[in-house]
Amino acid sequence: MSDRLARDFGLIPDATPTGATNAITDVAGVRVGHHTRRDGNLNTGFTAILPHGGNLFRDKVPAAVSVINGFGKSSGLMQVAELGSIETPILLTNTFSVGVGFTALVRDAIRANPAVGRETSTVNPLVCECNDGFLNDIQAMALTEADAEAALAAASGPEGTLSPTQGAVGAGTGMSCFGFKGGIGTASRRLDLAGCPFTLGALVLANFGKAGDLVLPDGRRPSPDDISDIPERGSIIIVLATDAPLASRQLRRVAQRGGAGISWLGSFWGNGSGDIALAFSTARRLPHEGAAVLETQEIAEDRIDVLFRAAAEATREAVLNALCAAPAYIGRDGHSRPSLADWLTGENKR
Amino acid sequence: MSDRLARDFGLIPDATPTGATNAITDVAGVRVGHHTRRDGNLNTGFTAILPHGGNLFRDKVPAAVSVINGFGKSSGLMQVAELGSIETPILLTNTFSVGVGFTALVRDAIRANPAVGRETSTVNPLVCECNDGFLNDIQAMALTEADAEAALAAASGPEGTLSPTQGAVGAGTGMSCFGFKGGIGTASRRLDLAGCPFTLGALVLANFGKAGDLVLPDGRRPSPDDISDIPERGSIIIVLATDAPLASRQLRRVAQRGGAGISWLGSFWGNGSGDIALAFSTARRLPHEGAAVLETQEIAEDRIDVLFRAAAEATREAVLNALCAAPAYIGRDGHSRPSLADWLTGENKR
Amino acid sequence: MSDRLARDFGLIPDATPTGATNAITDVAGVRVGHHTRRDGNLNTGFTAILPHGGNLFRDKVPAAVSVINGFGKSSGLMQVAELGSIETPILLTNTFSVGVGFTALVRDAIRANPAVGRETSTVNPLVCECNDGFLNDIQAMALTEADAEAALAAASGPEGTLSPTQGAVGAGTGMSCFGFKGGIGTASRRLDLAGCPFTLGALVLANFGKAGDLVLPDGRRPSPDDISDIPERGSIIIVLATDAPLASRQLRRVAQRGGAGISWLGSFWGNGSGDIALAFSTARRLPHEGAAVLETQEIAEDRIDVLFRAAAEATREAVLNALCAAPAYIGRDGHSRPSLADWLTGENKR
Amino acid sequence: MSDRLARDFGLIPDATPTGATNAITDVAGVRVGHHTRRDGNLNTGFTAILPHGGNLFRDKVPAAVSVINGFGKSSGLMQVAELGSIETPILLTNTFSVGVGFTALVRDAIRANPAVGRETSTVNPLVCECNDGFLNDIQAMALTEADAEAALAAASGPEGTLSPTQGAVGAGTGMSCFGFKGGIGTASRRLDLAGCPFTLGALVLANFGKAGDLVLPDGRRPSPDDISDIPERGSIIIVLATDAPLASRQLRRVAQRGGAGISWLGSFWGNGSGDIALAFSTARRLPHEGAAVLETQEIAEDRIDVLFRAAAEATREAVLNALCAAPAYIGRDGHSRPSLADWLTGENKR
Repeated sequence: MSDRLARDFGLIPDATPTGATNAITDVAGVRVGHHTRRDGNLNTGFTAILPHGGNLFRDKVPAAVSVINGFGKSSGLMQVAELGSIETPILLTNTFSVGVGFTALVRDAIRANPAVGRETSTVNPLVCECNDGFLNDIQAMALTEADAEAALAAASGPEGTLSPTQGAVGAGTGMSCFGFKGGIGTASRRLDLAGCPFTLGALVLANFGKAGDLVLPDGRRPSPDDISDIPERGSIIIVLATDAPLASRQLRRVAQRGGAGISWLGSFWGNGSGDIALAFSTARRLPHEGAAVLETQEIAEDRIDVLFRAAAEATREAVLNALCAAPAYIGRDGHSRPSLADWLTGENKR
Repeated sequence: MSDRLARDFGLIPDATPTGATNAITDVAGVRVGHHTRRDGNLNTGFTAILPHGGNLFRDKVPAAVSVINGFGKSSGLMQVAELGSIETPILLTNTFSVGVGFTALVRDAIRANPAVGRETSTVNPLVCECNDGFLNDIQAMALTEADAEAALAAASGPEGTLSPTQGAVGAGTGMSCFGFKGGIGTASRRLDLAGCPFTLGALVLANFGKAGDLVLPDGRRPSPDDISDIPERGSIIIVLATDAPLASRQLRRVAQRGGAGISWLGSFWGNGSGDIALAFSTARRLPHEGAAVLETQEIAEDRIDVLFRAAAEATREAVLNALCAAPAYIGRDGHSRPSLADWLTGENKR
Repeated sequence: MSDRLARDFGLIPDATPTGATNAITDVAGVRVGHHTRRDGNLNTGFTAILPHGGNLFRDKVPAAVSVINGFGKSSGLMQVAELGSIETPILLTNTFSVGVGFTALVRDAIRANPAVGRETSTVNPLVCECNDGFLNDIQAMALTEADAEAALAAASGPEGTLSPTQGAVGAGTGMSCFGFKGGIGTASRRLDLAGCPFTLGALVLANFGKAGDLVLPDGRRPSPDDISDIPERGSIIIVLATDAPLASRQLRRVAQRGGAGISWLGSFWGNGSGDIALAFSTARRLPHEGAAVLETQEIAEDRIDVLFRAAAEATREAVLNALCAAPAYIGRDGHSRPSLADWLTGENKR
Repeated sequence: MSDRLARDFGLIPDATPTGATNAITDVAGVRVGHHTRRDGNLNTGFTAILPHGGNLFRDKVPAAVSVINGFGKSSGLMQVAELGSIETPILLTNTFSVGVGFTALVRDAIRANPAVGRETSTVNPLVCECNDGFLNDIQAMALTEADAEAALAAASGPEGTLSPTQGAVGAGTGMSCFGFKGGIGTASRRLDLAGCPFTLGALVLANFGKAGDLVLPDGRRPSPDDISDIPERGSIIIVLATDAPLASRQLRRVAQRGGAGISWLGSFWGNGSGDIALAFSTARRLPHEGAAVLETQEIAEDRIDVLFRAAAEATREAVLNALCAAPAYIGRDGHSRPSLADWLTGENKR
């Protein structure tokens, strides 16, 4: 794991200040946990994101989805769009492990809420994915419910509140990005809305972008030496969290701006790339049952550009952090990905 | 104008109580005005609906759109969907008068808000339409900005708060429905959410449905005697108002249930029918400028079925009221439409 | 299993002729297989629908989704909406078995296409669900990949081409509908477009509707005797197949009309009901790889009402068939559902 | 009018070859006409784009819309999304002239098709807009139907087939972009799909972007000297034309990539910016009436990245051409916008 991130390489031109640790966990209450499976041809894992540390089924959070390019197999997005809320942790993993993640989240919800599917409604498991088949033996379908539970447990433990490890870790273990090693990245921004301080954080599972298409904010175009034989079947999952009070309709608009963040890096959301952004607000809880009328707050629409800009900036930086944090990697059957950090170091030396 | 409505013919099986006058104006603050042009081949007009009697540009209301079938030429719907608010009156008219209505609403907004398009943003005129070309000489494009202003003035005057005239009036003058004379109809429902009383009202511009497809709630299928030569190029505009506090995302869901109300009458939302539902809430105002964070309320999602059912019921009754209120009509070039009230009276006599 | 269907009870007023067996399998090539788990508190299963009997990953079919109410946990719908195609069988099952179904479809695709996720893209498993928790011990999560494979094998076998068993079978085993026993139903319509004969078929997993809300086409309102204690947490999956050549955009419009079919029966698409319609066309195959430009056909838009009407009619009849075919049922912990067939027989006797 | 475009300043890094004149009119049959009103405080106009020179109502073309940010007042988009076709010219103008443009297009359609709204359906006028209120006295609402007709006539005349004038012309006369003078820009790309040559062209009405946010492809960030007092209430209309055979669903995906093109320039699709992309294909005609089944072609989905990339590239270049072509401008009440060409020339001199 590299200990250098995008700012260490001078890649970030944004003027908006970051949160305390420049991570999604700067949004109070948000927790992240990884579980990594790295063993020969297996290079994969789960990453869990918890909007808060309590019972998410009982205390949902407002949320929304922006499907930037729907070439993807994630589960749970339809209900988030309809009801505007999240009621389980968000699990990230490889494409073929969505089913296992789904089942693990159902069991997790039943354990905490014995009425689920009996005295009350069922639960909507939220599992998002990218295809790590280049570096990982995805056909092995090696991840189990226990692996998903390990990521959930890691998020719930004391480490869950810290700035998450980035790069080739958890769901990001086998991911690629613009021909380099990709994976998990995170970043955050501090916002000021008429004197009210808020935070927005991004965490990405970065597996998108054709080799040769990456454009750094300063205009440089890093590319692996040999791009001829690298097919692109990427994807990116963008998770945005904020403590600003936003309605689901507004969160969809904020999530969409994650798409601007990745196109700032040269992406045009290629056909085969499942580019999905999720956004949630921790500013309030939506109780599973209770009062008929809920008191709430919401940002005035004409102030929302502050959040749009932060969403695009934090997404871009999170991707660059994933790229900078991930070392060169050799995976399945000797397939390898170089490190952007090495390219940048070499570039600086030239 | 018939003085009998659907309940007078025993057509309404719904158990939910109505508002005081069974009209959209039962929602406090909502105003309706008609302006009718009936002169030889001209059989058309404008109907204006005001969410409240104040300055709508300065004090917007939460709103949403459900495009049930988008074969239609309405203006303003895209921004309602994006921003979740209405900032002008809603004008209903014939298809070819949308442009005139648009211009009239712009001038109306400038008069009340001299900064529009200069020191502040422009304004989003909301004009919805159906094709009255069977009974009206729509190619004459006879309606003027003055006609639109007359409808707006009527809504703003003392009559605007009363239960609106129904049937062949205002925008409904030349409309047809299931082969009968259609037009403007309205209805309302009183709701109880955990002890809190609310009202939902519907107003429709009913111009949809192929002759022979109408199914009454009791299973009868009224049809004009001669349906062979009657083409269907209908449409319906459904406007739903409520004083219940609903987020825009929720209002979209409520609006969509207007679509159930019309399919309850036999519609399958035919290809050529622009079936559009708009819903707004009067429970709060969204100031054009002001505080960064707004205090608000919203119905808990698991209570929303009360509103869904009311939306479907009120829409169905509003359509039946339009049909019952409209007398037999002879319009352009001798084209005629029979009256459902006459059919029902004859049926009862048989 | 009752041997009587909706037409045997005189419930169907539609004038459009049915296909040869009044089933989705009247669309040439479409195959259906059930696998039922009925054992004490377990009352559930899988139903598999195959657009054709070949390799679906290599030869996809045009498809679309209409999310009538997105309170549901189905997987695979996002990609169908984006790419306009289906590349696996459609599996129907209970809510908590979506993960198992997902995994089974992945393995099934890998078996037939060893390049999946390696030399070529991954695969989009299509699993739709309803909550059978009233009659089935859904928390037991008893269904396995072998159960899903059994349904797929049944569809692939000689029985797969026959008119499918209806009522309490396969995924329909534990489902309820308007307070009665629901389940699997099917119906079809023969169409004539300017001399060209086509077929449209519907298969539903009917688990929706509050007791007391059912309205038969003749206006009767059947209801279980005791409705006070029956909560509604329903859903319906509507699958529409046709051999008419339709673009994905058109298939979405056709799928949406399944929603009219269920509102014709009294539904207003309640909040907790995941009402989802899928439509596909067997008129052409979309090869996974091959030519850059594909020759195709598509129905002229102004002829599409024939398909809209058929979709609504076939969906309504499929639901009524599910209701008529399913006998009274006792499931988990003695929970029971009466049979609509019994109600109709008793009604006729009165 | 500057005679220098983006390539003259070395701003375009794209490797894809352009069409013959690097304009939307490189797509055979597409025609463009401008009508400019420049007189004191009036700085506005109409631009007309014709997918072909024939009767568009009788011979529609496949089309789609991508609403990148729906803060806009365009008319006609809803029906394009539903039916997947365009049946009038596309008019671009200022926000308050949409009504006049709507009426002009109705009259234009009636003239060419006397059955419109009588023996056949009505027509869907397509009018898109940006707010030019900074440089233009938009409240004067000075544009008339005759102005719209003049743009339509210009497009229909011999000049309509030539590469259109760019910069401060037609609808672009009073537009601004990133604090510089904006307006009309165009560009095109030649594509090769497995040996088949195709062309994609873009024309933009560029009025978006906050001063200071512009990022050139080489990383430079041009900004007007004084940005403090410049509010942003922009918008962009992106029109994409191609002779590649694409279904409406595919055209929507292509249109969306116009959004990537503008974010490549630094945009994050600000709240107040109505960012709308339209795409149409000239590869076939959809007859208003005729055969029930249409023969057609469509690009295989796995080849579509070529079009996605071209859409993003051509959109970006069209915006840069608008910026380079437009000279410094003084408009309403002395409001002025500097020229990017001047900034680039000065920059080069420094």
